[in-house]
Amino acid sequence: MRISHMVGERTKETPAGASVKSQIFLMRAGYIKQVSNGIYTLLPPAQRVSKKIQAIIREEMDKIDGQEVLFPVVMPKELWEKSGRYYSIGEEMVRFKDRSNRDMLLGMTHEEAAVHACQNIIKSYDQLPLMIYQIQTKFRDEARPRAGLIRVKEFTMKDAYSFHTSNEDLEEYYSRAFDAYNRIFQRVGMKNFISVKSDNGMMGGNCAHEFMLLTDIGEDSIVICPHCDYKSNMEVAVSNYAKPKFEDSPIKEVFTGEAKSIEEVCAYLHLPAEQTMKAVCYAVVGDDKETVVAFVRGDKEVNEAKLKKVVGKEIAVKDLEGSGLVKGNIGIVGLGQEHMTIIVDKSLEGMQGLCCGANKEEYHLVGVNLARDAKIDKFYDIAKVKEGELCPICGQPLKVERGIEIGNIFQLGTKYTKSMGMTVTMPDGSQINPIMGCYGIGVGRCLASVAEELSDDKGLVWPMSIAPWQVYLCPLRNDDEKVSAVAEELYKSLSEKFEVLYDDRHVSAGVKLTDSELMGIPVRVVVSPRSLAQNQAEITLRASGEKIMVDLKDLESELSRLTKI
Amino acid sequence: MRISHMVGERTKETPAGASVKSQIFLMRAGYIKQVSNGIYTLLPPAQRVSKKIQAIIREEMDKIDGQEVLFPVVMPKELWEKSGRYYSIGEEMVRFKDRSNRDMLLGMTHEEAAVHACQNIIKSYDQLPLMIYQIQTKFRDEARPRAGLIRVKEFTMKDAYSFHTSNEDLEEYYSRAFDAYNRIFQRVGMKNFISVKSDNGMMGGNCAHEFMLLTDIGEDSIVICPHCDYKSNMEVAVSNYAKPKFEDSPIKEVFTGEAKSIEEVCAYLHLPAEQTMKAVCYAVVGDDKETVVAFVRGDKEVNEAKLKKVVGKEIAVKDLEGSGLVKGNIGIVGLGQEHMTIIVDKSLEGMQGLCCGANKEEYHLVGVNLARDAKIDKFYDIAKVKEGELCPICGQPLKVERGIEIGNIFQLGTKYTKSMGMTVTMPDGSQINPIMGCYGIGVGRCLASVAEELSDDKGLVWPMSIAPWQVYLCPLRNDDEKVSAVAEELYKSLSEKFEVLYDDRHVSAGVKLTDSELMGIPVRVVVSPRSLAQNQAEITLRASGEKIMVDLKDLESELSRLTKI
Repeated sequence: MRISHMVGERTKETPAGASVKSQIFLMRAGYIKQVSNGIYTLLPPAQRVSKKIQAIIREEMDKIDGQEVLFPVVMPKELWEKSGRYYSIGEEMVRFKDRSNRDMLLGMTHEEAAVHACQNIIKSYDQLPLMIYQIQTKFRDEARPRAGLIRVKEFTMKDAYSFHTSNEDLEEYYSRAFDAYNRIFQRVGMKNFISVKSDNGMMGGNCAHEFMLLTDIGEDSIVICPHCDYKSNMEVAVSNYAKPKFEDSPIKEVFTGEAKSIEEVCAYLHLPAEQTMKAVCYAVVGDDKETVVAFVRGDKEVNEAKLKKVVGKEIAVKDLEGSGLVKGNIGIVGLGQEHMTIIVDKSLEGMQGLCCGANKEEYHLVGVNLARDAKIDKFYDIAKVKEGELCPICGQPLKVERGIEIGNIFQLGTKYTKSMGMTVTMPDGSQINPIMGCYGIGVGRCLASVAEELSDDKGLVWPMSIAPWQVYLCPLRNDDEKVSAVAEELYKSLSEKFEVLYDDRHVSAGVKLTDSELMGIPVRVVVSPRSLAQNQAEITLRASGEKIMVDLKDLESELSRLTKI
Repeated sequence: MRISHMVGERTKETPAGASVKSQIFLMRAGYIKQVSNGIYTLLPPAQRVSKKIQAIIREEMDKIDGQEVLFPVVMPKELWEKSGRYYSIGEEMVRFKDRSNRDMLLGMTHEEAAVHACQNIIKSYDQLPLMIYQIQTKFRDEARPRAGLIRVKEFTMKDAYSFHTSNEDLEEYYSRAFDAYNRIFQRVGMKNFISVKSDNGMMGGNCAHEFMLLTDIGEDSIVICPHCDYKSNMEVAVSNYAKPKFEDSPIKEVFTGEAKSIEEVCAYLHLPAEQTMKAVCYAVVGDDKETVVAFVRGDKEVNEAKLKKVVGKEIAVKDLEGSGLVKGNIGIVGLGQEHMTIIVDKSLEGMQGLCCGANKEEYHLVGVNLARDAKIDKFYDIAKVKEGELCPICGQPLKVERGIEIGNIFQLGTKYTKSMGMTVTMPDGSQINPIMGCYGIGVGRCLASVAEELSDDKGLVWPMSIAPWQVYLCPLRNDDEKVSAVAEELYKSLSEKFEVLYDDRHVSAGVKLTDSELMGIPVRVVVSPRSLAQNQAEITLRASGEKIMVDLKDLESELSRLTKI
């Protein structure tokens, strides 16, 4: 490719609104162009990277017996009504009416389509296990797209679905898929990634893992034990922690005035946060009357994913205006009314001498003994794990890190085959609903994650396996006839063996060298009047900065060595 | 691939509603499964064919210096407002509001996105020419999906856009694209295809070609001169034809009773159809008041594409209820009112002694002399060419054939660069809007067209270049231990060199052989107790039916020969 005719411009300015490294460099190096909020065109360099990532994914999916299919992007409501997801998924799913006034939707994932594809085709136990996958465009109407290709509305995704006759068979396959995912992320060049147990969310089912690239710009919190193997997404992470025993005392109403937050109340009453109760109120989505009040120990935060599981319904932080609840003074003593569910975290179990809101303006209670003063049938785990709490496996202090979710795998169970009525006949003639697994990777996010992890202060740094081009051929002073002739000749001959991006522009050496670094092509070959005087080219490796002078006659063999994956 | 675990079932029954060969066989052989009207899942065999077609398209696009990109499926209204197409395209474009109430759409083609991608990146004449292309899912809400993958709502399309500084440069590139298209259709195995001049339709611009597979199931009519090179889509085809001169006579109203159609009136009055005028009324889309009345000679049909160009607006056949026009008795004499446009075909120019409606129930006029009795400023070419009319180039009789449009290329001009304000600087410092070309191929339609053309009465017949598998390995009597062992061994060894579909099922020889024919895999290798007694396998070529007995030791080299493209 001649860079003079390439669609993709290098710029010096940080694009407006771009805050993370991968986004800044992918935009500045001419890889992507924003069309709308969370919607991008992949320009030629990015599409080349994307295709290489897809090829790696295909190879690994085929290795675990995947059969590639293509499901439709647009599906009819009826298909998603059977699974119930037409109603349970919110605004992030695009719905529209077609010209015949039929309700249609843009598929966010394809469990329903996968069951539809196999239903009435896969009818017997001896056709299983099998796995089908696709690589396709998905549109999710994200509320907050961010960070370039990290969180977008439209993206290319590999999604895979497996079908099994037993949980053992699913688990065996799940572990093959798990290994394939590790190989994929290794092969695309990611380094600091881990897999963690995760919540199943809207997918249903039991066991799930997320693959996470650890990075400060990640949106997810991951709980990691540095001493043993425990790793978990915050959503499902558990921990042990000390429970201080406070002195029991009679319950007493105290004036706290304007003190509302735990911090303010603790300061006002000279109490540690551990001696207080924090109340957070939620509305149940789709039910205006219902309120959920969650209590955690004052030093802890509510884990909404855990709380949602306990409640069994979609929840959202509640606007207390007009609810009768006194913001900042909500307490458990005497609380309770129709359409209110109270959920108390296990951090509060057995506690006494506590402070909580008095359910009236300007007052809190102290000396609260939960066993004595509140009727709590059951305590639940609804709190977030905090850094320093103890590993549930080995008891050592936990760390909390941030990460980008780069892939996920789920044991789905029979949620979809059951609701859609897919059955297979077993050897004994009985009919069962096959057990499913599903396996997703976002191609664009994978691209951005590698960019995020490997970039340096000069720009992108692509690993050879997914680099858009292997070689950046860079004549300096190509107004010099000899330089120009040699460069053209090299472009022709090297292109037969390598993917070469040829900087044929008549611009300064500075611009060319800066652009080659910004674009992150692994191997740069410079020919200049000086190098040609020695019949040599100068090779620079983008990742290490290492420079090698090579005789022109050895250039091809040297590049063969350097481009090997 | 082991057929026992493949998602895709072979059936004997013709699926309900399937009428054309490709649709019937693609469904019966387990290649596709309908999800909704005009929406299909590609099962593994079809996806394999689709990927091979895409690979051929990519190779040919890269050969003509194409740069692959990926535009978004979902685009904001604003992008399509600039070109005006947000309003000019009808119900076939899906529009929806996103969660922030912004108007979005599903892209039918990507001219706007292509200009957006290049705008402010391509700024100088010396960056041109260039071509960008993508292979991507498109959704068009077709009113009448039909014939399986031939006309669908959702499909994978390769669309390409080129940018030029002059018409000469565009024409030169257009001709390279033209050649690439011919190579693509040859390489995917199509035989009876041609290219014809075509209408530009909603794309704008001047010159356009369609590539057509000639087949009786085609929806398009193509005018072909068997004597010279003239070939044209009916939409823009022209012809010469004899104009009989009828005797001039005074105009006279005659009773025709219930006779309404040309056929009925001609029978009633004993006139040839050439002596009558046919009126067809159209509404202007988006303007309730406007009526267009088109007149052609009684033996001819209105060509709506031509008429639309003359009118300059979208038209649709009008419901005459309440319009004041007398259905079956419309005539040109005295016709005319506010909001009515009358367009007369050149087949009627200079005619006399004609019969037309009298604009009242049960009556027609005879002896109509257009020069004398009607005020017609201009005659237009708005009629369809009929078989047997004369070639505009060589004067010989034309033929009309049916075809499927398998690809199209357009010289777009500056419609999009101008409306969207994309400019490049020329050597003299002036700014111009680059001139564009665009180039489309539907991958699924291409697949179905090959299936349509090559299938025989037993099923699909794939050419080697796009066959889902090259070899169908078919052990007969694999309850026989030796057969089963040899087959497993062959599957393992042959899979290293070839794409092998292995019929590992324990079903009858009849089922296996029939399935292999239905699926259309080019080379079938049968091993059976009888063949193994001779240490041989039996090869059958799907296309020709030719059978070859081969020693097992020579099987690999024989297959290498047979699978060569």
